[in-house]
Amino acid sequence: MTNLELSILFFLQLTFILAVCRVVGMLAKRIGQPQVVAEMIAGVLMGPSLFGLLLPGAQSYMFPKASMGILYAASQVGLVLYMFLVGLEFQGDLIRQRLRSAASVSASGILVPFTLGCMLALYLYKDQHFFAEGVAGWEAMLFLGAAMSITAFPMLARIIYERGLTGTSLGTLALAAGSMDDAAAWCVLALVLASFSHHPTVAVFAIGGGVLYAAFTLLVGKRLLRRLGTVAEREGGVSSRMFSLVLMLLMLCAWFTDAIHIYAVFGAFILGTAMPRGLFAREVQRMLEPLTTNFLLPLFFVYSGLNTRIGFVDTPYLWMVTLVILLAACFGKGVACWLAARLNGEPQRDALAIGTLMNARGLMELIILNIGLERGIITPTLFTIMVLMAIITTLMASPVFEYVYRRPVRFAPDAPEPGIISVHAP
Amino acid sequence: MTNLELSILFFLQLTFILAVCRVVGMLAKRIGQPQVVAEMIAGVLMGPSLFGLLLPGAQSYMFPKASMGILYAASQVGLVLYMFLVGLEFQGDLIRQRLRSAASVSASGILVPFTLGCMLALYLYKDQHFFAEGVAGWEAMLFLGAAMSITAFPMLARIIYERGLTGTSLGTLALAAGSMDDAAAWCVLALVLASFSHHPTVAVFAIGGGVLYAAFTLLVGKRLLRRLGTVAEREGGVSSRMFSLVLMLLMLCAWFTDAIHIYAVFGAFILGTAMPRGLFAREVQRMLEPLTTNFLLPLFFVYSGLNTRIGFVDTPYLWMVTLVILLAACFGKGVACWLAARLNGEPQRDALAIGTLMNARGLMELIILNIGLERGIITPTLFTIMVLMAIITTLMASPVFEYVYRRPVRFAPDAPEPGIISVHAP
Repeated sequence: MTNLELSILFFLQLTFILAVCRVVGMLAKRIGQPQVVAEMIAGVLMGPSLFGLLLPGAQSYMFPKASMGILYAASQVGLVLYMFLVGLEFQGDLIRQRLRSAASVSASGILVPFTLGCMLALYLYKDQHFFAEGVAGWEAMLFLGAAMSITAFPMLARIIYERGLTGTSLGTLALAAGSMDDAAAWCVLALVLASFSHHPTVAVFAIGGGVLYAAFTLLVGKRLLRRLGTVAEREGGVSSRMFSLVLMLLMLCAWFTDAIHIYAVFGAFILGTAMPRGLFAREVQRMLEPLTTNFLLPLFFVYSGLNTRIGFVDTPYLWMVTLVILLAACFGKGVACWLAARLNGEPQRDALAIGTLMNARGLMELIILNIGLERGIITPTLFTIMVLMAIITTLMASPVFEYVYRRPVRFAPDAPEPGIISVHAP
Repeated sequence: MTNLELSILFFLQLTFILAVCRVVGMLAKRIGQPQVVAEMIAGVLMGPSLFGLLLPGAQSYMFPKASMGILYAASQVGLVLYMFLVGLEFQGDLIRQRLRSAASVSASGILVPFTLGCMLALYLYKDQHFFAEGVAGWEAMLFLGAAMSITAFPMLARIIYERGLTGTSLGTLALAAGSMDDAAAWCVLALVLASFSHHPTVAVFAIGGGVLYAAFTLLVGKRLLRRLGTVAEREGGVSSRMFSLVLMLLMLCAWFTDAIHIYAVFGAFILGTAMPRGLFAREVQRMLEPLTTNFLLPLFFVYSGLNTRIGFVDTPYLWMVTLVILLAACFGKGVACWLAARLNGEPQRDALAIGTLMNARGLMELIILNIGLERGIITPTLFTIMVLMAIITTLMASPVFEYVYRRPVRFAPDAPEPGIISVHAP
């Protein structure tokens, strides 16, 4: 296909993707589910699991192999912009406020699912169904451990915000524990990815480069970036010159962390946390968010969905594995966090709410799984099983939270709320 | 290259492109030139004319052939979003206010350069340097005629706005004439493109489909879309649901006009003009503009610059042709519009200002030229010559306008001006 043909097709793909996300989103809203659940499911539906099964000709016309490069690159840009927004919203000072409870909730929310993930990997590793050839046992363990420990931090933040719980005890605790949790899981993943580049020098570059990058960005970079905040406050806004400087920095960080074999999403997230807060952060978010979440991010769900083939899970044994993974995920994360909160003296309702919120994997899980698949760690079968786990744990969050709190959760309000922190639901 | 490698490279390309545009933009600002001139020139510098000439190895590492599909598709999306913004800003009622003057300025601003373009094409057509093989003489004439008649309408609107001339006689006249001019030139181009698909059925589809598309969008679509405006006014903003509906429609229109062999930019522009005005248009613009103009649009300048090779213009004869085309462009457009304005009784200062503004070709010319090159109408040599003409006429606009008005023109203010119409300078 020529570049012209590919670009014409890209418009058609975008139309189709936006339309499917819209329709599934409307149905999801009726049953009280947020847009992120709709988009996760829409992605799977557009892949070989439904569209490709029912209309294989139309599916391969819509998503030919030649177009995957464009779809992948655009979805990665969307993901990087999105993770930057998540970082921009990250509030480190919340952790300090509720350090003890948050630390124990988040520690159990990592240690238990991580241990369960490792144990499962030990068992699954014997079977060639799940991990790619050439993956060492300990790499499989680390990867599945990290993948089980993920929390849908942005979605958690969104629910807390929309319920007006931001300043409450529950809100602070959930936000603090969730962010510590994700930070730790991403660090483990970085380690796995770094180690997975079999050459020792590559691993050294990856781990050393990653540590240096984080240290430099958070210590030196943050200080230098502070000036942007001052200028923004003085000028009463973010100029297009400043905005394109931020975008340039973001692309540089994404490239660098990709190039040293960590991953662009880390680079973007860390840069986001190092950005000045206040007016600057709000304005940059206002400028970035609409196109990122409504236009570029859905591409990632589709790319992920194209790799998910529910048909792979075709034996009672594989369905049993799926069920075991799902149970381990819910027990390891939801139950462990609930227990830890209870042991820290949190009231029952809050403890249940925290367990539920921490249990949802959302978009974050899809990111980690796609990295694992792209880097040849897991097979498409395990990928599909884990995607199912991610969707189900995310689906569970809203009704359970609603039941615990006896009030319906409102997601993604239709009317815009200018000037507030409003990262998309995932 | 794998999709992963291409996506990593894409981050590097984006960093490089944003950095070069930034640096050239800063230099341009010092000499009183707008960002669009900087980006046009930056694009050329990143191509074979400078970067490829000095560091051929680095240039082919940065922009390998395998990455062109991604760059092209992303730049087309940027262009479509941009042309939609231009359409959103288009104010049809201005034309009615100053119909007589506007009609005669715009008529001379089309007829004279069009005639000169046709005559030049007749002459240049004999030489195989300029038009691709298989192009009929009348197609060459129509294409060069249309290419000579283009006005940088969005840039003109921007200057008028920034000088506070929007409500004045000069402002209304320039905006009305500029928009009529561009509309006519794009229609001629649509005709050329349609006719250029040698199969008669394709041409019928293109012309018929294009007319039907425009009629449907402006008559039926506009009426249906009015509801969006009502909802936006009622809710006090544009919800993300509404925004993604607009994006979906836009992608559909872009795909349709591309697929019937007209061109996505028409589809996007016409849809933009059919959108409801007021709060809705302002909000959509606010949501779309930052990433479109600062992030996606620069890709188009680069793609265009990669096709420009000043080394092609390597003989005194070709430099003479360049000079003749430049003179014909300035005479046909600038002088003709000035004369028409004078004959309509406009004061000298206003007439000179209008001639200057209409003469700048800006981004619009690059769009038309890239279409001609992509569709195999013109050769890379004529493409390069016309790019030079576009850059020089755009460079001329600011100093001449400043001289006529005796006040410096301010472009692209650094502080954002929320809630105002502020399409990027091109």
